[in-house]
Amino acid sequence: MHTDLRDDISSLIFIEELDRLKCVMRRSFLYDNSRLENSAEHSWHLATAVLASAELSNEPVDMARALKMALIHDVVEIDAGDTFVYDQHARADKQARENLAAQRLFGLLPAPRGPELRALWDGYERQACAESRFVSALDRFLPLNANFKTQGRSWKQHGVRKRQVVDVNCKIANGSRRLWAYAESLINEAVRLGYLADE
Amino acid sequence: MHTDLRDDISSLIFIEELDRLKCVMRRSFLYDNSRLENSAEHSWHLATAVLASAELSNEPVDMARALKMALIHDVVEIDAGDTFVYDQHARADKQARENLAAQRLFGLLPAPRGPELRALWDGYERQACAESRFVSALDRFLPLNANFKTQGRSWKQHGVRKRQVVDVNCKIANGSRRLWAYAESLINEAVRLGYLADE
Repeated sequence: MHTDLRDDISSLIFIEELDRLKCVMRRSFLYDNSRLENSAEHSWHLATAVLASAELSNEPVDMARALKMALIHDVVEIDAGDTFVYDQHARADKQARENLAAQRLFGLLPAPRGPELRALWDGYERQACAESRFVSALDRFLPLNANFKTQGRSWKQHGVRKRQVVDVNCKIANGSRRLWAYAESLINEAVRLGYLADE
Repeated sequence: MHTDLRDDISSLIFIEELDRLKCVMRRSFLYDNSRLENSAEHSWHLATAVLASAELSNEPVDMARALKMALIHDVVEIDAGDTFVYDQHARADKQARENLAAQRLFGLLPAPRGPELRALWDGYERQACAESRFVSALDRFLPLNANFKTQGRSWKQHGVRKRQVVDVNCKIANGSRRLWAYAESLINEAVRLGYLADE
């Protein structure tokens, strides 16, 4: 039947594998508090936020590169799972697990596309270009904002305190000082309202 | 408190509104058959598929433009809901509902970003550029493939027949003749396997 035609679509196995990211659950809740967020819809939210707010970046960004990074930054979670940013134990072997996942998943795509996406993912991890820093700033801001919208539900559930939130999120300033100024005010307001435990 | 800082992030209301697309449900099931797909994760899948398979397009595409179109093509569903492609009744006033939604939603973003995204959405609807035709081809292919993966679950649930599937999906050829050749073989195979009713 369609075997030859299927082989003609060399990206098909990768595209089909992507469907699994919709079942990787994060620790963040949707703003309406109805359920946890998954990594596929988060990646869409991130990419579209990048598109909508490029003027917040400290440095000029190449929009195509920034959007590509946002789209693929969490693809490795298909194999490696989502690693909670406040879980020190799980973070210890995060890089090793994700490198293996990147090798398998981007390896499903032939050259030049596979190596191109792998290099973009490596670039995002290294945080050495303006695009990676700006995308990462929004990647941190979105779950912080979700926590605020849901009265700190995930922070409370995992016993997260203000010092940890500041430590993780102060890196937002590397990509956007304006976004960090607002994020910092949100953190302080969250403490004032009892959404987030002070020290 | 942070009111002035919040006002400084002029894209924030739009970014926050985007969260609602995660709750707009489509008629397609995930490949693992566990649940229906939502429009936010679908938009991520589409944009990432576009990124992974540009060589399938009939014509060269500007990747930045194609990714932007994929990211925002369903944003109007936040107000207008998802319109099932095989529902003739709901399709009658689809354009009017979606135009109103586009006016409100892209209107939340200041110039130049708001008008830019509105023009991209209009361009996608018009299908007059190579990018819109290629993105639309994948937008049709992904749910067709999902139906095949789930043994025609959504087709059966809604009494959809081969003639309707061909009528809707033959437009894939406008963006990618190679993808349509494969899609057509999938449709025939679906009929042979009993996933899709013949006439």
